[in-house]
Amino acid sequence: MSEQTRYAISASWVVPMEPENTVLKDHTVIIEQDKIIDLLPTAELQQRYPDISVEALPGHALIPGLINMHAHSAMTLMRGLADDLQLSVWLNDHIWPAEQRWMGPEYVHNGAQLAVLEYLRGGITLFNDNYFYPDVTAAVTSQAGLRACIGLPVINFPTTWARNTDEYFARGLEIHQSLKGDKLITTAFAPHAPYSVDDDSFLRIRKLAEEMDIPIHLHLLETAGEIADSERDFGLRPLARMQQLNLLDTRLLAVHMTALNDADIETVARHGVNVVHCPESNLKLASGICPVAKLLDAGVNVSVGTDGAASNNDLDLLGEIRTAALLAKGFSGNPEAVPAATALAMITINAARALGMEHQLGSLVPGKQADICAVDLSAPETQPIHNVISHLVYATNRQQVQHVWVAGRRLLRNREPLTLDVEEITSNARVWQKRVGKDYVAQAGA
Amino acid sequence: MSEQTRYAISASWVVPMEPENTVLKDHTVIIEQDKIIDLLPTAELQQRYPDISVEALPGHALIPGLINMHAHSAMTLMRGLADDLQLSVWLNDHIWPAEQRWMGPEYVHNGAQLAVLEYLRGGITLFNDNYFYPDVTAAVTSQAGLRACIGLPVINFPTTWARNTDEYFARGLEIHQSLKGDKLITTAFAPHAPYSVDDDSFLRIRKLAEEMDIPIHLHLLETAGEIADSERDFGLRPLARMQQLNLLDTRLLAVHMTALNDADIETVARHGVNVVHCPESNLKLASGICPVAKLLDAGVNVSVGTDGAASNNDLDLLGEIRTAALLAKGFSGNPEAVPAATALAMITINAARALGMEHQLGSLVPGKQADICAVDLSAPETQPIHNVISHLVYATNRQQVQHVWVAGRRLLRNREPLTLDVEEITSNARVWQKRVGKDYVAQAGA
Repeated sequence: MSEQTRYAISASWVVPMEPENTVLKDHTVIIEQDKIIDLLPTAELQQRYPDISVEALPGHALIPGLINMHAHSAMTLMRGLADDLQLSVWLNDHIWPAEQRWMGPEYVHNGAQLAVLEYLRGGITLFNDNYFYPDVTAAVTSQAGLRACIGLPVINFPTTWARNTDEYFARGLEIHQSLKGDKLITTAFAPHAPYSVDDDSFLRIRKLAEEMDIPIHLHLLETAGEIADSERDFGLRPLARMQQLNLLDTRLLAVHMTALNDADIETVARHGVNVVHCPESNLKLASGICPVAKLLDAGVNVSVGTDGAASNNDLDLLGEIRTAALLAKGFSGNPEAVPAATALAMITINAARALGMEHQLGSLVPGKQADICAVDLSAPETQPIHNVISHLVYATNRQQVQHVWVAGRRLLRNREPLTLDVEEITSNARVWQKRVGKDYVAQAGA
Repeated sequence: MSEQTRYAISASWVVPMEPENTVLKDHTVIIEQDKIIDLLPTAELQQRYPDISVEALPGHALIPGLINMHAHSAMTLMRGLADDLQLSVWLNDHIWPAEQRWMGPEYVHNGAQLAVLEYLRGGITLFNDNYFYPDVTAAVTSQAGLRACIGLPVINFPTTWARNTDEYFARGLEIHQSLKGDKLITTAFAPHAPYSVDDDSFLRIRKLAEEMDIPIHLHLLETAGEIADSERDFGLRPLARMQQLNLLDTRLLAVHMTALNDADIETVARHGVNVVHCPESNLKLASGICPVAKLLDAGVNVSVGTDGAASNNDLDLLGEIRTAALLAKGFSGNPEAVPAATALAMITINAARALGMEHQLGSLVPGKQADICAVDLSAPETQPIHNVISHLVYATNRQQVQHVWVAGRRLLRNREPLTLDVEEITSNARVWQKRVGKDYVAQAGA
């Protein structure tokens, strides 16, 4: 590695995200160790930092490292395994049998590595994960030098990861303990969903999350069907049940949130719940559509996640906010809904805020961590450049991400990952293709 | 150029599109002059074509050249000029003033060149264009070696292209005449829209289109607002008016079609009208949503277009069918709607059928033209490969398009265009950025 104590990155444009909707022409970011210590016009660089080592990136825009707020990283190995199916068929006949057969440390290691490689090549520097064997995903991420918020899964049915609820908690707490003090990896509780986690577990999570001061990452209102089921099983709508369990607050990362009426939106806003929007997964599974424009109008903090590769099927946040911005307009009937700068905020500063990390991450501001992504806008597909932020959202392809730094450390150079072995990772994926694919074909034919 | 009379392209997968939903593993396409003359397992190549020159493309999928069914190519120069605005504001305050100020042969030449470059790099080999100075767009396309169906514009207001309706017809007929016998360029009438073209012009177009045997390319039912306006101005809904004018038949390429009720769908199906779906433009302008799933169920031939770069803002057909497939599921509430193979058909065989060119184009079948696109699926983002067609629609990035041939002539090699000068085209775009951008800023500030 070639980190220096202090160095400069000069680019044609810097999009700091704070202040919002701002493009700084010909600016330079100064980095020392893991932090941004200055941001200045490149014209002043020579005078103010005469001997500094400079990486000049003409034609590039610097943006904060992107934050993927809902991931099941290891599911990359099931990418394209089953598409265009009813949710119940997809889960019961394809995804769950494949997981039951194959999920384990090796599967998660290889799947998470493939995801982390895809994140890095797409400018994603932090992901909020929810999957089994979180210790394995944490280790893969650490090794690659990315950041993650690793979910500690809780679900009321046994898996190879844990036999019962107590074991889920015990294993989760153990992992949390082992990651304490880690500079790049944090944890969150990840109760699966209201329909798969009982009240006692939720109460326990609430108490522990407060003591440990970590977020709660929950699938909530993915489909309208959840509402009737909840009324049948608990006598309450899911949101009302979560409210009764005292779970609605700024600690909650509520993922999907498709089946919201106006009163729900008001409740979500009043309690400061963070909504994580997964537009492509919701569309693909026809789960419903999150009313993003209304949530934003109500002052709710909305961020965006890719969901897992089995239901998306790309882990592409730039593509995801393009879909989010387009869908919000089409769904609300208002072409002014979710303008480009708002869409970009959803995968940067809003996401950092959701994780309670807005003082460290999410914008290119002196004092924050140096998590930076350099996007080459000189490609024909982003010419001419009337508006940099518009291009980043509506025209840029993630393959235009050229360089990535996390905590001041360079992880991607000219699209080459410096901490991950592409050949090894893709070759492992091909091994799983044969295993999982063969298994899948055998079942489909059965 | 290095065309040979006869050569072979071997790939890990060939997706011929006919028969539908088929992936041929380790197959080879044999090309002679401008045609595909054979398609066989690569294992048989040595025996059947012992001395043929072979291009081996391991890890690649061969698919037909993609067909963009609705384009305003030269509008690339306004990419990102104005976003996130109401349709009327976008048109009246931004797009039309910019067009009025700048549109002319040089603008169209440079804008169309940028579009053609983007098409080629994204696997698009034929586009159905609708813009002024169609002769200039035709010339640019010919020079690059791509195919186009060039619209002959008719609109009841003056532009620098034509002062009145008669002049639109005269100039259109002249261009049609001059392109007769061209192997790559065909024409269509392009009446702008029901609200901007009078009955007399439509009747004239109908008669001429039949004599000339060319399609009619029309914006129809882009927004629900068109219906009330049409009832007010013509005493009929737009579709009923088109029916009365005898325009509803297989010659009609009806673009957008968002405001359709069930009776409309039945009418469209009965008359064999071709629907061209532009999902991203419709979402971005909040125009409405085309009921694609219902149209397909009714047997309508649906293809897909990008629309112009001012309202999309990428001319990316692979991205466009991803959006089309996702949106159809979300909008219909049925995750089985528009499965991957159907989405891919919309930009290949369905599009060829809409243009009346299905005997020449749209599938990789011996006897058809050799319009071929090679997509590299070995990238980490498309691993593992459980399903090639799923990957092409849901996971592949257009930058994975590595090689393109049109009529047997190679136009893109390892992503390098062989007939277009990237430097010159992007540098011209930068000139227009200053002109159009400056003009725009001046107006926006006024």
